[in-house]
Amino acid sequence: MKDKTFLMIPGPTPVPESVMLETARHPIGHRSSEFSAILKEVYENLKYVFQTKNDVFVFTASGTGAMCAALENLVNPGDKVLCLSMGNFGERWAKIAESRGAVIEKIKVDAGQVIDAQVLQEKLAQFNPKIVTLTHSETSTGAANDVKTLCSIIRKHGCLSVVDGVTSVCAMPCKPDDWDIDVLISGSQKGFMAPPGLAFLTANERAWKVYEQCEHPSFYFDWAAHKKAVADDTTPFTPAVNLIAGLNVALKMIKDEGIDNMNARHKKHAMALRAAIRALGLQLLVKDDSNASCAITSIVPPEGISVPDIRKTLKNDYDIVVANGQGQLQDKIFRMGTLGFVCDRDLIGAVGALEASLQKLGHRFETGAGVQALLKGLQ
Amino acid sequence: MKDKTFLMIPGPTPVPESVMLETARHPIGHRSSEFSAILKEVYENLKYVFQTKNDVFVFTASGTGAMCAALENLVNPGDKVLCLSMGNFGERWAKIAESRGAVIEKIKVDAGQVIDAQVLQEKLAQFNPKIVTLTHSETSTGAANDVKTLCSIIRKHGCLSVVDGVTSVCAMPCKPDDWDIDVLISGSQKGFMAPPGLAFLTANERAWKVYEQCEHPSFYFDWAAHKKAVADDTTPFTPAVNLIAGLNVALKMIKDEGIDNMNARHKKHAMALRAAIRALGLQLLVKDDSNASCAITSIVPPEGISVPDIRKTLKNDYDIVVANGQGQLQDKIFRMGTLGFVCDRDLIGAVGALEASLQKLGHRFETGAGVQALLKGLQ
Repeated sequence: MKDKTFLMIPGPTPVPESVMLETARHPIGHRSSEFSAILKEVYENLKYVFQTKNDVFVFTASGTGAMCAALENLVNPGDKVLCLSMGNFGERWAKIAESRGAVIEKIKVDAGQVIDAQVLQEKLAQFNPKIVTLTHSETSTGAANDVKTLCSIIRKHGCLSVVDGVTSVCAMPCKPDDWDIDVLISGSQKGFMAPPGLAFLTANERAWKVYEQCEHPSFYFDWAAHKKAVADDTTPFTPAVNLIAGLNVALKMIKDEGIDNMNARHKKHAMALRAAIRALGLQLLVKDDSNASCAITSIVPPEGISVPDIRKTLKNDYDIVVANGQGQLQDKIFRMGTLGFVCDRDLIGAVGALEASLQKLGHRFETGAGVQALLKGLQ
Repeated sequence: MKDKTFLMIPGPTPVPESVMLETARHPIGHRSSEFSAILKEVYENLKYVFQTKNDVFVFTASGTGAMCAALENLVNPGDKVLCLSMGNFGERWAKIAESRGAVIEKIKVDAGQVIDAQVLQEKLAQFNPKIVTLTHSETSTGAANDVKTLCSIIRKHGCLSVVDGVTSVCAMPCKPDDWDIDVLISGSQKGFMAPPGLAFLTANERAWKVYEQCEHPSFYFDWAAHKKAVADDTTPFTPAVNLIAGLNVALKMIKDEGIDNMNARHKKHAMALRAAIRALGLQLLVKDDSNASCAITSIVPPEGISVPDIRKTLKNDYDIVVANGQGQLQDKIFRMGTLGFVCDRDLIGAVGALEASLQKLGHRFETGAGVQALLKGLQ
């Protein structure tokens, strides 16, 4: 049905009407007092959402832009960077570090697995890196690291931790100031309930000391230029003013809900969905609930039913878009996002539609088993 | 009056309602066939607007992002870069080149002046740079270089020309394939009649040869990743899908008008405005029409009347936003943009409002002289 699509991919995610309408207002001058007033609220509310006393920078860019904004302001050629990789987005950190001439090593785990603290400790002792990159919620698998524990180990070793919070911020507790996270990045089209095109970064004093040693910091993503801009309620360059105006509305909604409540909502949804998937007799890529992202759930299709068929049925018959696996996981899993502007009713509809789709495709189970398990989880 | 603002700053510029409404539609997945269909049209129509047979890349970024996308894929530390500077945006090229460790020299002219071909020839012989950066239409002054002549000289010398077409593309003839321009960049919030947040770059085969020698090309702005993406009707990273959907509508409007007609409209508007300003007894920063940008006109206020007062009166009484000067030109000039989605009626209203504002502030001239000169120019 036209205009009925429910985006369950891990970004772009559903966006409230009030946010979309705000983005549709005619652009205003980015050096005007009206726009400064918007930015002032945005910068303040981003600190609330990121749960940090430090500035949060806003870049007109994809989330990958914020990843570059992290490493391109920290890495000199020859620097040692350890990349903790659970999948595609962990690999992306490594590629960016390499693009700046870093000497990299990786701890790489199988799809669906998370980084082991003991392995990290041993690797740190052996490799002695300057920077460690990690992913909080790995969008390609739905696995989530215990960032608090890992970053505390990284801190004890004297290294800098650089964390991809693209799908975790808003969806899962993520507390840079309390958890020894030195640099944290995210993007607007994820838990923030806004359209894609804006990316965020916050860095602490330890990170700034490393920035000061960076020989060729990025010009477009330069931290010093952005810090000065935040202090002046402005941006260094012409930003996507419409997207920022929309983000302002979305951030107020997040503040109204409360970040802890928002985290709890995501956890409830993800765990209830996992229970439903199990009740349907399907396998989860991430076996253990405690290692599961609250933003995205990776599901292995039943024997004999293909991922493209499941995606096609969900889309054509129920206007639900779920994601395929990426890279080597393509056609091996499908991924259901429960990220951002998602309510219980959305999820009930989605699980019911998944049940019906699987039955159409020949998978057998007791009708209603998924919805029943979901409803219990939502209680 | 609320919602009546006419943006005459050099960006963001007025945006058609149809474009804004398109950006307000719910985001769709960036890997969907629906979005690929949009991108396919966008990539095709950008080649038409840029008047090139080469690919035009789309970055989710400010115009400055596209400037970085140019030099960060070409410059190695120690490379010699000659920066032709008519003002703020000419200086920006130099800063970006320096941020990559280039050895730079400049040809710098006073505000309102343009680069002299003879001076360029001598400098090329003396400095022998690898790359020459130049600005087509200098947004901070309203001066416009003869890019065709300058780039032909640069080509003859065997250097690579990198051109800022941020306010010139759409507003003035700019033909990279015919004019020996090796790299050309622009931004969505200028002549393209779209909101800010997208930036564009096209590069020819000569530029690609230099790219191949770049030791640490940008990851986010990497040309090879974008070239592959264009071939596949996609983008390397999650783009600002809403802005791209809006751009698609705007590009179709440009194609319907015809790029030559659009250039001619801008020329007519700029020249008629210049005639009106002269008729009001005001000085133009760029004296000679043949050196004037067709996107932006810099005006020196009458003796005894301040730029802030003119801007305030235009804004408060007539809902027109004009720009102040930048840097050393602050409060010395005001700048009126005639860029993008601007019709004759807009300009007639603006010149009439400027007349009335100047009279309120004490400047004396024959009432109607400006509008009269404008109307003659618009014939």
